Amino acid sequence: MIVISVEKYLPFWNELDESMKKLLDGAVKEIHIEKGTVISDGQTKCTGLIIVIKGQLRAYLMSEEGREITLYRLKDGDMCLFTASCMMNGIRFDVTVEAAADTQAYLIPAEAYKKVSEKSAAAANYTGSVMASRFSDVMWLVDQLINKKLDSRLAALLIEESGLAGGNVLTVTHEELGNHLGSVREVITRMLRYFQSEGIVRLTRGRIEITDFEKLKQIAS
Amino acid sequence: MIVISVEKYLPFWNELDESMKKLLDGAVKEIHIEKGTVISDGQTKCTGLIIVIKGQLRAYLMSEEGREITLYRLKDGDMCLFTASCMMNGIRFDVTVEAAADTQAYLIPAEAYKKVSEKSAAAANYTGSVMASRFSDVMWLVDQLINKKLDSRLAALLIEESGLAGGNVLTVTHEELGNHLGSVREVITRMLRYFQSEGIVRLTRGRIEITDFEKLKQIAS
Repeated sequence: MIVISVEKYLPFWNELDESMKKLLDGAVKEIHIEKGTVISDGQTKCTGLIIVIKGQLRAYLMSEEGREITLYRLKDGDMCLFTASCMMNGIRFDVTVEAAADTQAYLIPAEAYKKVSEKSAAAANYTGSVMASRFSDVMWLVDQLINKKLDSRLAALLIEESGLAGGNVLTVTHEELGNHLGSVREVITRMLRYFQSEGIVRLTRGRIEITDFEKLKQIAS
Repeated sequence: MIVISVEKYLPFWNELDESMKKLLDGAVKEIHIEKGTVISDGQTKCTGLIIVIKGQLRAYLMSEEGREITLYRLKDGDMCLFTASCMMNGIRFDVTVEAAADTQAYLIPAEAYKKVSEKSAAAANYTGSVMASRFSDVMWLVDQLINKKLDSRLAALLIEESGLAGGNVLTVTHEELGNHLGSVREVITRMLRYFQSEGIVRLTRGRIEITDFEKLKQIAS
């Protein structure tokens, strides 16, 4: 028998009464998702809530030209709501959720989670805060889309800097990059982290290492 | 004394216990917001939840070129969460909320609503569904931003059609427009409704009346 310890991933666990705990305990399954598997694409039935134990899920939209736009990534401890969007009132969109790495996860069937949310304010509020966090990720993306294409300008600047540095390791600070682009350090750092999560750069103390020139060029153009 | 009847705007009212009802009843205020007033812009303190009784609120982002991007509009009965984003865990973005018309509304101070949400699963779930609905509005916008600029193509097509019709009233069907643009009726209807909410067209049975050529041209270009 697998020892299920979903409670450590659910901050509201201790506020549940015994019957709710039992309901979740009996419903949750540990699953393994192979890298590249599409878990949810809007056509698939309502799988349930997925909590990443180890690995990574990526939620994206597909543009009509076939470009994948990453909305957010879920890492260890994160909960994926949109594989259970059937249980959520008000959701009228589909995203594709794919395993970006071999992923070990808990699956909580939508029905069980819904029952718990209906009784427990703590569970419902937690669901709300997870949604708010994903909403914030998407709003950041919207800001990028409508604003001055900071992604492509930063990508172009990094390519230029690597030419100046004569290699793929840059020692320019985030603040200096911001000054070049008429932006502030925080915004540059956030964008660089996005690049890092896309495997384009690696950030270490005081350094930016370009790890995927091809992608960087695509973004710059 | 004003007769407060906020309960008819809160679907979870009947599931609240008496103390919670009293708390809300004592905290809620009826307010009047003049057209053009900015209620929330990320700098302002946490005003509270606003329920539109009559009027209209508009939430938008400002691009760096100064273009306002409407995220969604709130009409009679709708609740605005983002004027109370301080009380919501996970929200890391700011939108500007402005009265798009003279608006009569209920204001529920954030603290009171938070207390109710913490105790009532029904209230917390309702908040979640309102957020999901706004999230869906924004996802629709993202889809527009990353996809084939349907807005500008439709705008250009409407201008062309008005040329053919020799006036501002078009009798072309949404399906025909969709066929022209390689899209489907539902998508065209949704976009036309967005144009309508922006005051650009007026939709009546079997007709599309262009009411703001200037805006339409801006979108087309």
